[in-house]
Amino acid sequence: MARNTRERILAAALELFNTFGEPNVTTNRIADELDISPGNLHYHFRTKADLIGTLFARYEQRMLELLATPSDGTPHIEDIWLFLHLVFETIGDYRFLYRDLTDLCARHRRLHQHFQGILKLSMQTARDLCDGLAEVGQLDASSRELEALVRNIVLVATFWIAFDQVLDRDSEPRPDRAVWQVLSLVSPFLVGTAREELGALSESYW
Amino acid sequence: MARNTRERILAAALELFNTFGEPNVTTNRIADELDISPGNLHYHFRTKADLIGTLFARYEQRMLELLATPSDGTPHIEDIWLFLHLVFETIGDYRFLYRDLTDLCARHRRLHQHFQGILKLSMQTARDLCDGLAEVGQLDASSRELEALVRNIVLVATFWIAFDQVLDRDSEPRPDRAVWQVLSLVSPFLVGTAREELGALSESYW
Repeated sequence: MARNTRERILAAALELFNTFGEPNVTTNRIADELDISPGNLHYHFRTKADLIGTLFARYEQRMLELLATPSDGTPHIEDIWLFLHLVFETIGDYRFLYRDLTDLCARHRRLHQHFQGILKLSMQTARDLCDGLAEVGQLDASSRELEALVRNIVLVATFWIAFDQVLDRDSEPRPDRAVWQVLSLVSPFLVGTAREELGALSESYW
Repeated sequence: MARNTRERILAAALELFNTFGEPNVTTNRIADELDISPGNLHYHFRTKADLIGTLFARYEQRMLELLATPSDGTPHIEDIWLFLHLVFETIGDYRFLYRDLTDLCARHRRLHQHFQGILKLSMQTARDLCDGLAEVGQLDASSRELEALVRNIVLVATFWIAFDQVLDRDSEPRPDRAVWQVLSLVSPFLVGTAREELGALSESYW
């Protein structure tokens, strides 16, 4: 039963943080939402930072599992497309982290360090996928172009949620559009069948 | 003298907001920094929101002036390079806006509306510049590629500061790197002399 309350608190916190932004949600509001006393919430999570830390750990675990997968074998555009969908669904599920990323990182040192780790791993994964495509003759870019490309991929992947939110308030996250945004960065460097594959995938998207 | 105090408050607020992030700076701290009483600050700016609004209006004026300039005549890569430098210097000068953009927009409706206007105008400017390059045969992209390109240009331009801050805390803003990040998005679509021109410019950057 205690376990169940803990899970309910986490689910309510995630939902409220995602909807209103973490800075605008107090632990009292989360307790209110669940119709439990602030003391009961406090028993499970001593501070709001504990709550954020636990949600972040779950997000991090999902991201690390995802980022560990795409390294085996020759990459195909269709696999990369699916991989990005899973990444952007995870980001959408924990979008409060991305909404106020700079401030969360400034306030929570441990979260910042771990997030930096995820960004660096994401850049490594993007680089590996590009290198893999280049090795089988499906991508053509100079090392300088590749460096800028990898940085832009991770920048766009990290901030598409914040961009959507500012440009078009109250919109739901659109992982499908984010996939397209990121693949459109890679698209001009694709050659051969990868280019055709992406063309076909983008047709089904539009 | 009163006018002078008002300007000193604005300068100190901008400096503190940029350094520590707007959510972490109270008006009392700004008064402390200037060695004036909170009442004196309050006389010039009734609320922190007034202070933010005045700083935003100055930022907006600079941006609107910049975004109005590049439309006349055939665009050259070197002019676009310079234009982006000026834009990114302005963004760097008011970087607190970009650090906590989603939250500022959620808390200040007027700021949000005006910022949306700047984003839309930026997209229009990016589109005009690309169309201009295409008309003189220096850019080759399909309409779908162009749409994704324009969106990515404005996304990268808007969030390079936040990205730098999270990836490499305490770093100074790097407008020169931001220019390169944005032009590397356009680069694969350039043809003819524009491509050579950008190559030469990027040599001098590296």
